[in-house]
Amino acid sequence: MKGAHPLPAGMRDLLPEETRERRELAGRVLERLELFGYDLVLLPAFEFAEVLERGLGALEPSEVLRFVEPESGEVAALRPDMTPQIARMVATRLQTRPPPFRLAYEGTVLRRLSGRARKRRQIPQVGVELVGAESPNGDVEVLEVCASVLSAAGLSDFVIDLGDAGIARALLANVAADRAALVADALGRKDEVEVSDRMKEAGADPSIFVELLHAKTLADGVKLLEKTPAASAARRLASLHEAAVSRGLGDRLTADLGEIRSAAYYTGMLFRAYARGSADAIGSGGRYDDLLARFGAPMSAVGFAIDLDALALAVRTANGATKPRERVLVVENEAKARALREQGVACVVHGRDGAKEYASAWGFTRVVEET
Amino acid sequence: MKGAHPLPAGMRDLLPEETRERRELAGRVLERLELFGYDLVLLPAFEFAEVLERGLGALEPSEVLRFVEPESGEVAALRPDMTPQIARMVATRLQTRPPPFRLAYEGTVLRRLSGRARKRRQIPQVGVELVGAESPNGDVEVLEVCASVLSAAGLSDFVIDLGDAGIARALLANVAADRAALVADALGRKDEVEVSDRMKEAGADPSIFVELLHAKTLADGVKLLEKTPAASAARRLASLHEAAVSRGLGDRLTADLGEIRSAAYYTGMLFRAYARGSADAIGSGGRYDDLLARFGAPMSAVGFAIDLDALALAVRTANGATKPRERVLVVENEAKARALREQGVACVVHGRDGAKEYASAWGFTRVVEET
Repeated sequence: MKGAHPLPAGMRDLLPEETRERRELAGRVLERLELFGYDLVLLPAFEFAEVLERGLGALEPSEVLRFVEPESGEVAALRPDMTPQIARMVATRLQTRPPPFRLAYEGTVLRRLSGRARKRRQIPQVGVELVGAESPNGDVEVLEVCASVLSAAGLSDFVIDLGDAGIARALLANVAADRAALVADALGRKDEVEVSDRMKEAGADPSIFVELLHAKTLADGVKLLEKTPAASAARRLASLHEAAVSRGLGDRLTADLGEIRSAAYYTGMLFRAYARGSADAIGSGGRYDDLLARFGAPMSAVGFAIDLDALALAVRTANGATKPRERVLVVENEAKARALREQGVACVVHGRDGAKEYASAWGFTRVVEET
Repeated sequence: MKGAHPLPAGMRDLLPEETRERRELAGRVLERLELFGYDLVLLPAFEFAEVLERGLGALEPSEVLRFVEPESGEVAALRPDMTPQIARMVATRLQTRPPPFRLAYEGTVLRRLSGRARKRRQIPQVGVELVGAESPNGDVEVLEVCASVLSAAGLSDFVIDLGDAGIARALLANVAADRAALVADALGRKDEVEVSDRMKEAGADPSIFVELLHAKTLADGVKLLEKTPAASAARRLASLHEAAVSRGLGDRLTADLGEIRSAAYYTGMLFRAYARGSADAIGSGGRYDDLLARFGAPMSAVGFAIDLDALALAVRTANGATKPRERVLVVENEAKARALREQGVACVVHGRDGAKEYASAWGFTRVVEET
């Protein structure tokens, strides 16, 4: 171990200033979700690996932290994703309520950093799941909620890249999963050369992808795919895009037939939200109509999660640092401090010596000293 | 494993109604802590066992969930207590700031249930640590903050049992640690017979404890201990009690020379807060002047943690269920829903069929239907 008191890889503390920023941001996001009727629920930080795997497919040992739970002797895992937990909760604890379910969650997931093998990080997330609402109405609702949440967080400039998981699935149906993932990744980066190379390595024809990358409009792309197995997924994406535009989301949306990166469980719409200041997506989501069935409660579902770290970077880039809240350092006067607190002013009593230095080190906006 | 999708022992979900209650309660507590100048920080959910043990002493394998962290090959543990994490943070990341440190934290710890061997549960906590403030001023501040937090949570009737860890340490100095713990436990329950039996088993004289249990006033108790090695700790407790009373906390406090249950790290004042509705303490804390030194930053420290589950029980007993917030189910009218949201009213659009049933199942206070 390095350092005197090291933290496990990918773990970190948040100091007062960062914590305040995080809390304010999460508060704005959750408040907006409540406005759209999403109910917050709380999920345990770890579950039996077997239950998580029911939702996520086999968990890569290098992706997930596991341990043997001593009570049961079963393997438990720190969650890499909260969506399967919501699916479990809906299937086991909320079956008496009528759909659609509008649920929100907040918490930390543990993921491997993309691109850098064997590095993990904790990602603070807020997310929603809309269970039992079909496409396209449910899809449009979730896109609207996502856009509204990002606005509420303080962003006026962001873009939501809209795709459909069915396109990749159809076009890469004959390519092995691990090779298909490499193609999808290259396609996401619009890297024409790598897309071609990866397809050729897989013994498949890259021409449709190359043409897709050159398609100027969504309509052109849909026309391109008309004769392929991806035709119906492409038309579904185009009609969802139209529905979202008529809900007033046109400014925010880019429909992208080549946006086919996807978690294992997506079955229809998928999207990622981006804004200046964060290289990582600030939000991502999609439709996963098969997931609930794996927990014995077959229902359609769609949702998204916001990465609060990425969102904080974007908000800081857009608006600068958050304004410090008022708080007062009162010099040697308990009665004065009590009176200020009764007025709702945060304050601390301090001795006369070093009061100014203390105030500046700890972010007090005012020193009150009565002579 | 039992059930279709079981949770690990002691883990549970919180459904919408419970989550709302928890969140409101935590919000009121944190807001009050901010008013007293305590800065919230965020700590990782697990750490290297070796770091936690530096603060807690050897972790009982049955008490703590551990796993091998794959990056380092070191043993990590899900935290059973956040105080050692704060100590680590202060020692490693906040050393450039002047004391006193006023820090607050919120999160879940994993503990073995007392009395029922091999059962664990997750305890949602909010706590504070005041680092670098000596007794008695720091002690009185923390007691005042604790009382104020419990009032802010909505309790008008609670009691804080105040003790001193030095009394037990002095009186049980010659009793083996495991036997001393049994005596302390029996003393906490005022079980005179068991106190006597346990002391006799340990080959020690129980008479001082029996007399303590019969002492009518704090002054009587202090007098009783005057000739024992616990004399100075008893006087310290009496003078702290006096200082707290003159800060206006007299209604809330019971000083109890026999309240000697203690976590390993307490060195002076210790206390537990109780209220009707919860058998468990709703809050507990104390002074631990040796802990920071174990992390290389010798400083005095005092703090407490609130058990949000226990507090919720007490608040519900005192005030009944929380009032449902207003939210509206709008029948087939997106424009109306948008207008309501702009006024800050939470709402969801629903089809005409089954709207009333849906509203009642999901806690909507009003159905808006325009004909």
